[in-house]
Amino acid sequence: MSALPAIPLPAAAPDPLDIAADLARQLQATAIERDRQGGHAAAERELIRASGLLALSIPTQHGGLGASWDVTLRAVRTLARADSALAHVFGFHHLQLAGITLYGNAAQQRDLLRRSATEHLFWGNALNPLDKRTVAVASDDGFVLNGVKSFASGSLGSDWLTLSAWHEPTASALIGVLPTASAGIAVRGDWDAFGQKQTDSGTVTFDNVHLPARQVLQAPGVAPTAQATLRSQVAQLIMTNLYLGIAEGAFAAARDYLAGEARPWFSSGVAAATDDPFVQHRFGELWTLLRPAEVLADDAGRALEKLFARGALVTAQERGELAVAGATAKVLAHRAAIEIGSQLFELTGARSTSAKYGFDRYWRNARVHTLHDPVDYKYRDLGRHALTGALPEPTAYS
Amino acid sequence: MSALPAIPLPAAAPDPLDIAADLARQLQATAIERDRQGGHAAAERELIRASGLLALSIPTQHGGLGASWDVTLRAVRTLARADSALAHVFGFHHLQLAGITLYGNAAQQRDLLRRSATEHLFWGNALNPLDKRTVAVASDDGFVLNGVKSFASGSLGSDWLTLSAWHEPTASALIGVLPTASAGIAVRGDWDAFGQKQTDSGTVTFDNVHLPARQVLQAPGVAPTAQATLRSQVAQLIMTNLYLGIAEGAFAAARDYLAGEARPWFSSGVAAATDDPFVQHRFGELWTLLRPAEVLADDAGRALEKLFARGALVTAQERGELAVAGATAKVLAHRAAIEIGSQLFELTGARSTSAKYGFDRYWRNARVHTLHDPVDYKYRDLGRHALTGALPEPTAYS
Amino acid sequence: MSALPAIPLPAAAPDPLDIAADLARQLQATAIERDRQGGHAAAERELIRASGLLALSIPTQHGGLGASWDVTLRAVRTLARADSALAHVFGFHHLQLAGITLYGNAAQQRDLLRRSATEHLFWGNALNPLDKRTVAVASDDGFVLNGVKSFASGSLGSDWLTLSAWHEPTASALIGVLPTASAGIAVRGDWDAFGQKQTDSGTVTFDNVHLPARQVLQAPGVAPTAQATLRSQVAQLIMTNLYLGIAEGAFAAARDYLAGEARPWFSSGVAAATDDPFVQHRFGELWTLLRPAEVLADDAGRALEKLFARGALVTAQERGELAVAGATAKVLAHRAAIEIGSQLFELTGARSTSAKYGFDRYWRNARVHTLHDPVDYKYRDLGRHALTGALPEPTAYS
Amino acid sequence: MSALPAIPLPAAAPDPLDIAADLARQLQATAIERDRQGGHAAAERELIRASGLLALSIPTQHGGLGASWDVTLRAVRTLARADSALAHVFGFHHLQLAGITLYGNAAQQRDLLRRSATEHLFWGNALNPLDKRTVAVASDDGFVLNGVKSFASGSLGSDWLTLSAWHEPTASALIGVLPTASAGIAVRGDWDAFGQKQTDSGTVTFDNVHLPARQVLQAPGVAPTAQATLRSQVAQLIMTNLYLGIAEGAFAAARDYLAGEARPWFSSGVAAATDDPFVQHRFGELWTLLRPAEVLADDAGRALEKLFARGALVTAQERGELAVAGATAKVLAHRAAIEIGSQLFELTGARSTSAKYGFDRYWRNARVHTLHDPVDYKYRDLGRHALTGALPEPTAYS
Repeated sequence: MSALPAIPLPAAAPDPLDIAADLARQLQATAIERDRQGGHAAAERELIRASGLLALSIPTQHGGLGASWDVTLRAVRTLARADSALAHVFGFHHLQLAGITLYGNAAQQRDLLRRSATEHLFWGNALNPLDKRTVAVASDDGFVLNGVKSFASGSLGSDWLTLSAWHEPTASALIGVLPTASAGIAVRGDWDAFGQKQTDSGTVTFDNVHLPARQVLQAPGVAPTAQATLRSQVAQLIMTNLYLGIAEGAFAAARDYLAGEARPWFSSGVAAATDDPFVQHRFGELWTLLRPAEVLADDAGRALEKLFARGALVTAQERGELAVAGATAKVLAHRAAIEIGSQLFELTGARSTSAKYGFDRYWRNARVHTLHDPVDYKYRDLGRHALTGALPEPTAYS
Repeated sequence: MSALPAIPLPAAAPDPLDIAADLARQLQATAIERDRQGGHAAAERELIRASGLLALSIPTQHGGLGASWDVTLRAVRTLARADSALAHVFGFHHLQLAGITLYGNAAQQRDLLRRSATEHLFWGNALNPLDKRTVAVASDDGFVLNGVKSFASGSLGSDWLTLSAWHEPTASALIGVLPTASAGIAVRGDWDAFGQKQTDSGTVTFDNVHLPARQVLQAPGVAPTAQATLRSQVAQLIMTNLYLGIAEGAFAAARDYLAGEARPWFSSGVAAATDDPFVQHRFGELWTLLRPAEVLADDAGRALEKLFARGALVTAQERGELAVAGATAKVLAHRAAIEIGSQLFELTGARSTSAKYGFDRYWRNARVHTLHDPVDYKYRDLGRHALTGALPEPTAYS
Repeated sequence: MSALPAIPLPAAAPDPLDIAADLARQLQATAIERDRQGGHAAAERELIRASGLLALSIPTQHGGLGASWDVTLRAVRTLARADSALAHVFGFHHLQLAGITLYGNAAQQRDLLRRSATEHLFWGNALNPLDKRTVAVASDDGFVLNGVKSFASGSLGSDWLTLSAWHEPTASALIGVLPTASAGIAVRGDWDAFGQKQTDSGTVTFDNVHLPARQVLQAPGVAPTAQATLRSQVAQLIMTNLYLGIAEGAFAAARDYLAGEARPWFSSGVAAATDDPFVQHRFGELWTLLRPAEVLADDAGRALEKLFARGALVTAQERGELAVAGATAKVLAHRAAIEIGSQLFELTGARSTSAKYGFDRYWRNARVHTLHDPVDYKYRDLGRHALTGALPEPTAYS
Repeated sequence: MSALPAIPLPAAAPDPLDIAADLARQLQATAIERDRQGGHAAAERELIRASGLLALSIPTQHGGLGASWDVTLRAVRTLARADSALAHVFGFHHLQLAGITLYGNAAQQRDLLRRSATEHLFWGNALNPLDKRTVAVASDDGFVLNGVKSFASGSLGSDWLTLSAWHEPTASALIGVLPTASAGIAVRGDWDAFGQKQTDSGTVTFDNVHLPARQVLQAPGVAPTAQATLRSQVAQLIMTNLYLGIAEGAFAAARDYLAGEARPWFSSGVAAATDDPFVQHRFGELWTLLRPAEVLADDAGRALEKLFARGALVTAQERGELAVAGATAKVLAHRAAIEIGSQLFELTGARSTSAKYGFDRYWRNARVHTLHDPVDYKYRDLGRHALTGALPEPTAYS
């Protein structure tokens, strides 16, 4: 199975979701304080590395844990309950690994995935095909890159980067990989959003960076295959599970506070806040936001796994149906995270706004992260599909 | 009339859901007109009988089709897309069969189920343990029943009835079965709701009716087992699938109308109503009401099947978890049916209110049927469970 | 003051809203039955005529009651509580009178309004500038009309009609008035919607109908003034008050049923349905839908009156601001009518669906009437205004 | 400190709402930074003092500006658009002044109000009749106070305090006033909520504090009059206008950002974000949340002014009707502030989450402040009233 000699995975390998739950507990201990401070969470990234879960989605033949996508996504969700910023770093690490499989050739897959597994490499993202500010010019062996890339999730503190660069002659983007420490690459930690503070979403600048041909995953001018377009679906489902993790974290926090600390409203006539009929009713409403989102996210995760496994055989139709399932789950998770993150306070009341509980971070984290792409365009895609059968157009966001 | 001497179940038995779809098409042809007129749908009941689907949930060893509960529930849903009143008659027929299995002893199950399968019997409901107006007094061999039972779904036109009657000495209700044509039983068709008009939910009167001991499924004074309390979960999931069928029918009607007949709004700037961004967006919102309800209903249906198969081994905990899954699905289906049935008109516009389309029947049917028990108490049950782990109390409604 | 000799308006003239309330009580008595039957409500139209309120909005100098628009709109609302179909007939009668003032010259106003007051004329609508199926061809003295006009509210049973007809040479519509009994005019009662059944919204056909020049309110090729475009605002506010009347009627019906007939839910633990916390809470939510709609409709009604009184001095800016106030009120009234008409049943429960109560007519009437123009375009207009200050474009619907 | 020797109220006195708007602009300049830091806003309190608006609600005969309550409330709202924490300090200052009028005798009113006007005193709140932790024991001349009071809004930095203290012999609370600098009073700045950070809502401790009899506004054991119970309505309407100010601030911020900085979504097909139909539609929805809240708050403000002016003649019925109007407005304002504060981001998108804009403070401030008392109990009160006519029970919260 796995060949992570330094990581204690004994004969009877533990369930990776147990490892994730354990890791989540460790992150939880400092999450409120780190949310306040923001910045780079170097120590916590090492906790993730030490857990062995950086190899979670890497196939066993390349030395990884060989988890299916539904399991990997649940691990993202588990971490997000405690710390959705580091869950994002973790999830996007696996997105880069997915990109290697979806775009790369056999040799690239073998080399990069094995090396990632063996060296416990942390991957970051500098890929945004819509952003033309980084340009690639062909050179003797590969390309020379110049320019800048913003909102590069997980770039700060990463070992390797996936990147895209605009290639003017073909009016298209190439996709490649590079060590973050490559000559000419600089990462600036300038992310200053009011939530998801520790996602290391810095700005990457490329100053005459050499990208060797063997590290080009997708050459410029190549139309992406249906398989390649699965990458945005992996990204969308990582976000879906991230929102869900936030929603689950907020739901659990409200429940625990209501059971342990809340006092019934003075005119409620009940002895405990959890007996208040309005509290029960509203919590029931929140449950009907959360539970369907969980079920549909799990279904979509399994569908992704199935399609991912089909490799080059994936059809545009299959890919489109996955996109519909994913968009449905994403909209539900979006709504659950925002509403539970905001409405929990109607239940927990004034005292629960003390900074010591950090309960506002659920809404702040959900609010920032759910803006990756506009939810109203998801509704449009879903409505269009339901009306006419049209599948969501494969883009970086759908 | 019905004779079904050779229901075509040869080596390659047709999928019962195909039969249901076929039956739905037949019901659809007259549904708008029958909705207008109300009353007893004798001919359509015979179509159901002729389809063979009255034996759908009867185990094969008793001569039935042996369908699992998730399949039976999907058949209910399929019919409800076209005609939710007859789908209710059909669903409650299977609820009575479920009652025989859940309450009856082996001999009762063998005799009643086999006879039901062989004779294509139609069962009706006169069971409502909360209603004490029909009383049972012990007699030599069994009981004598006197009184009245309202809202007896499917009673009119039924062959047999399941009934409950209040037994004063034990302050509890017995449950039994009787041929509808028994001496002293009269069924009056006095149901006059504005929706679900052809559910044959009449008033049954008992005038010195003799209930033989061998037809008592549950004697008075007997505390129901966890297994027996599954009956209300069967009932709740029948309703859930009925609401869903209405929602699906309304959704499809809106889609077809928008594609075929609607004109774009004069200031929309688009050539077809289906291209209107507001139409697409709102239809997408309706999709996010419908799809989760379908998925969670299917999950709950499979959970019911699993528990039903466990027979007497069912625990209160398992039963309670099913009740939570069922209540979650029911609330979603309730909301989907009401909202799609009402909001579809925002999309289809003024011309779609012509009586010839009959589009208002979705809301009317959903509105009447969703009042079986108050949705706000479902939210309460769900919230209470999520807050404290308390399982819904087993009642006739939860 | 008023000169309606046959109508008993003594020295101390009664408040017209008292008369309207009285009239509403009379209509209420048969409203459920007439809603079931549909068709033309000849007798009830005579009740309206006999009330004297056909002259409500006619200025006193022309022999009318001289009510301001906010009072006229409240009278519409008052009738709509009991019978929203006849309220529509009544409201659209006053819309035609408004059209005479807004489009007509002094002589037309004097003659038509005085005659309307004196003879208690009932006006109907055959005006729809977007519909080009009725064409006007210039003749010696005026025009000859040919064609058809659908959805002509109040046309059946009217004494006079306002009409529009397409004039090809100028590619515009003229607006005129004619006695309904004019040679060549036929009115067919073919309205068959599932709600608002007695609005007499028939189809009017014109077969070589002579429209004398003196009865042309607006000649073809004339750009409407800001004053003239107030007509659609009168129409929009009539609808707003009609929706509100439905909402108020539904609200009152629910309240009365809950206080008088409803039983508390068996597991509620309270003695009366009105003590159920969930009933109280949801009714409170409905209140917060209803109350703001009322307040904003009244404000918009007063704004209309103020602008109407300014006559030709009305500016496009003032007209636009009224349109914003009206659209805001209309959206609120729309939502209140649909939601209260549908949600009231969550409170009143299963027994309240009996046809004898006729409670479904609130939703059906609201549903049909609120489709006059799409609510989503109202939201667009409001959002556009709030974003950029752009005023709603003056059309027949905004 | 402030000296304001000649508050410029010449012949043509400036509109106090212009002064408030000006003050709001000054507060706005530092609001984002101060929201980040929290703590005591000494300098900004002096800006308020220097504006002269501390005397806004003080009657002219006592040397104040004599503003009506609707104007005072609009001033609170105006400040809250820019800085809802200081708007709270400002609003609660006027609440204490209202308390003097509602509870105090003529001499107390004269002395305290005149002195407040002349010396530009800032009042803070240490009144909470439900909190029995501060006790009053009768002494020679008045009472001796001991204990603690939390969440004392505006206490830190105040000149005088209104306070309540529990009087055991009568099992009731007295209400009195004291200079904050009185011997034995200490104010601790321990408020640490995630929003409304600069409300100076500290903890006040009383250590053998002498409360002279002449400074007792309401003696223990005295049943509050209907007039006295107006105080909680003043408090509720201050909050309502505070929420509204937040909602208006968020709405304006979204509009300005959309007009000035936002980019249209890549697949929207429009040139400017404000042309996106989904942006327009959702902004229209937010408008229909905001506008009714404003109108009903203004109506309730005028109703308060009218009742306040009636002094001791106020009846319980009148007071109850005001409470209904106030609760309706408060629920609408609550919803507007929370929803606009959260949904604005669906429109402004990912880049608008940068800390430099501080857009999250609208939701955080609204979220913290709207928890003063549970909104679900407001819905209950409104529903109960609409169902049965019962008026909200006069409490500190209703």
